[in-house]
Amino acid sequence: MFYPGNKTKEYKKNINYANRGMDLEDMINQSNTYYLSENRAVIYKKPTPITISEVRYQKTERVITKAYFRTPSTLDYNGLYRGIYLDFDAKETKNRTSFPLSNLHHHQYEHIKKVIEHGGISFLIIYMNGLFFYLDGHDIIDFIENSTRKSIPYSFIETNGHPIKQKIRPRLDYLEIIDTLYFKEGSH
Amino acid sequence: MFYPGNKTKEYKKNINYANRGMDLEDMINQSNTYYLSENRAVIYKKPTPITISEVRYQKTERVITKAYFRTPSTLDYNGLYRGIYLDFDAKETKNRTSFPLSNLHHHQYEHIKKVIEHGGISFLIIYMNGLFFYLDGHDIIDFIENSTRKSIPYSFIETNGHPIKQKIRPRLDYLEIIDTLYFKEGSH
Repeated sequence: MFYPGNKTKEYKKNINYANRGMDLEDMINQSNTYYLSENRAVIYKKPTPITISEVRYQKTERVITKAYFRTPSTLDYNGLYRGIYLDFDAKETKNRTSFPLSNLHHHQYEHIKKVIEHGGISFLIIYMNGLFFYLDGHDIIDFIENSTRKSIPYSFIETNGHPIKQKIRPRLDYLEIIDTLYFKEGSH
Repeated sequence: MFYPGNKTKEYKKNINYANRGMDLEDMINQSNTYYLSENRAVIYKKPTPITISEVRYQKTERVITKAYFRTPSTLDYNGLYRGIYLDFDAKETKNRTSFPLSNLHHHQYEHIKKVIEHGGISFLIIYMNGLFFYLDGHDIIDFIENSTRKSIPYSFIETNGHPIKQKIRPRLDYLEIIDTLYFKEGSH
């Protein structure tokens, strides 16, 4: 799957999360809704970027009757946690041995670097081999700057990434990883 | 104009910015592009929130053939400046004496409060009476919590808001106001 955020449900390939009946985007959205309801963080998915070319009135409602998908230049999710700006994306691959970097547009990679440079936290949530990994932007940059490979080996993700716990609420507790990595005293 | 982000160009009422031939959204987008190019901040407008209900293939391209506008629950712009999370919206009114609070959805107001509570900066850029004002989230909250009025008088905006300078680049230098308000030493 190239870019989940650009696809409507109908066009998504089925990826089975152990029959949980949700896709990765749903799981992250549910987690964000939970974090917000607990007043722990303010994190949203950005709307799918489109270019609207035709709008018509149907009765009193404006309906978009022609629009095109745009390539995103940023990542899908951003927000605020413990006073820090977060910016991340969710990616998945059926490839078992490596994560193809074609999943990450060049503009998205440049965006990760900018966010870190300006004091934010940027990362990917990668679903691969039945596991959810948090892979920090610093590790992504390290890999890409020091390699000519077009994919990140699974061994690199296993070594440098952090498995994200699946819970009932939140579905994917990725903020726990950020607590460990960025706030020394651990979870609050 | 109720919600600029929800309108396509064709449906926007013409508001004349002294014949500069740009609307408020364009001016902010140009400013953000400039800030990014100068590596001063990383700020983007979020895409217009829509619900896609029909997608068809035209030749090899996926085209959205039916979609609906959604009411936004957050603000249009967010990003990162000097390590701080920013979240804001642009509003305009032709009303000369007051800014109608119907311009600000309840969810957007709640969002402003959340952002401030979690350590971010939130504000509105208001175009009114030929001027561009920065009105900080703290002042918006103060007004709304202490008043039963359904609009903010222009005198309140003049007193508590900060006029934003129009320049060639950036078009609207709103970060200058943030420097003054949040970083004591002034511009960097």
